[in-house]
Amino acid sequence: MMRSSQDLVEKAALLGSLHVPGRPVVLPNAWDVTSARVFAEAGFAAIATSSGAIANSLGYDDGEYIPRDDMLAAIDRVARAVEIPTTADVERGYGLPADELIARLLDAGAVGCNLEDSDPQTGQLADCDEQAVWLRAVRASLDAAAVPIVLNARVDVHFRAWGAADERLAEAVRRARRYREAGADCVYPLGLANPSDIERFVGAVDAPVNIAFRPRGPSFGELASLGVARVTFGPGLHLAAKSWLASLAARLIQGEDPYSSS
Amino acid sequence: MMRSSQDLVEKAALLGSLHVPGRPVVLPNAWDVTSARVFAEAGFAAIATSSGAIANSLGYDDGEYIPRDDMLAAIDRVARAVEIPTTADVERGYGLPADELIARLLDAGAVGCNLEDSDPQTGQLADCDEQAVWLRAVRASLDAAAVPIVLNARVDVHFRAWGAADERLAEAVRRARRYREAGADCVYPLGLANPSDIERFVGAVDAPVNIAFRPRGPSFGELASLGVARVTFGPGLHLAAKSWLASLAARLIQGEDPYSSS
Repeated sequence: MMRSSQDLVEKAALLGSLHVPGRPVVLPNAWDVTSARVFAEAGFAAIATSSGAIANSLGYDDGEYIPRDDMLAAIDRVARAVEIPTTADVERGYGLPADELIARLLDAGAVGCNLEDSDPQTGQLADCDEQAVWLRAVRASLDAAAVPIVLNARVDVHFRAWGAADERLAEAVRRARRYREAGADCVYPLGLANPSDIERFVGAVDAPVNIAFRPRGPSFGELASLGVARVTFGPGLHLAAKSWLASLAARLIQGEDPYSSS
Repeated sequence: MMRSSQDLVEKAALLGSLHVPGRPVVLPNAWDVTSARVFAEAGFAAIATSSGAIANSLGYDDGEYIPRDDMLAAIDRVARAVEIPTTADVERGYGLPADELIARLLDAGAVGCNLEDSDPQTGQLADCDEQAVWLRAVRASLDAAAVPIVLNARVDVHFRAWGAADERLAEAVRRARRYREAGADCVYPLGLANPSDIERFVGAVDAPVNIAFRPRGPSFGELASLGVARVTFGPGLHLAAKSWLASLAARLIQGEDPYSSS
């Protein structure tokens, strides 16, 4: 389903404009049409998808085990269901060449995308140079498509617990700078959670920064004061919904009214 | 994806054996793999699907607006995700001939199905004779397939508020008897909620009876004592999950920690 190109240009520009350091845009991660509509109706300015949540809801493990057509169809359903911009988590790009990935994302109605720098199946960090080359190719495809898709480059140094703990921040900064030079609009150091590290990362990287909200981590107010530009949840909201459903199921199998405390 | 025919025969027989009047099987209605697995892990002996919930999660209104291939693919994902029997809500059969409907259901791994006797788009009750002919054709296809799929015939007299209120019970009983003669294994008077009406219906119909659990309706214990053989929820559990997610989204957009009370 092809969207109007003008509609995509406007949505992409809107999504980009929401990335304001110190006043982070909060993007809840949807996994199906129901969740996307719930978030849109709550008043969020834009939404993201979570590859892990979508894969789980369709019966796959996270990590590019889902067929790419199924993932792109799920992104399409989410993006079609809401008027607000949708940014898509597409892991490592599912083996698609950059121009085809961008064409498929635009065809699905996505106006932003996450690309990660570790192998989702082995957990190995990608070579930084190779990742920069890949991001540069994606940037060139975006520019050629003339839709300002927001390119969010994930930096998995902390998420993958790369190397020695005291070397991670420097390595994450080094990678983020390279990815920014290669054309990333936003950088996303997944697993970076310590407030002072977040502050140092934000100060060292000349780009909007995406931080994943964590239980017992910094509040939204703290993340704003640290200069963060975007907050997302990965599969967290889906996992919370799953936990809630498990508690409902536990009551139900005991013969309790499932609607009594919902 | 073809299941082993022996596996389907065993699952269908198990599902059928769970329909015991006075000791109702409780079948939570799943809409995706995540919900199906949550219900299976909670210990339910079998699960159902809800056409309305599946349609909503994929971006369609209920009432056969979803392409049948998409509905059957969703049923397939659910049935494949769990070891327990899955019975599928297939509305009016999506225009498929009886033998093709049964072949597609078995291919999807479903060992039970609901078929309803009103038009999901107009709300008009089907002609009782025509519905009986249709159910007889489905029964013949089931018998030919040699898998004892549990055929659950929905009776929509109360759900559609057919005719005068004081004539509904007699009409529902008349239809249920006809559908049972035509080969239904179970009858499902949707919208029948009053305990004395349920008791009279169960007493008048020589078949296992499925009642939809309702907020503020009879408890599981009451439904058992009324002689009910099966309890389901339609889209109710999905709607409850959606309401819960809306409350999470409302907290989140206020800047609250979404994980704090989940």
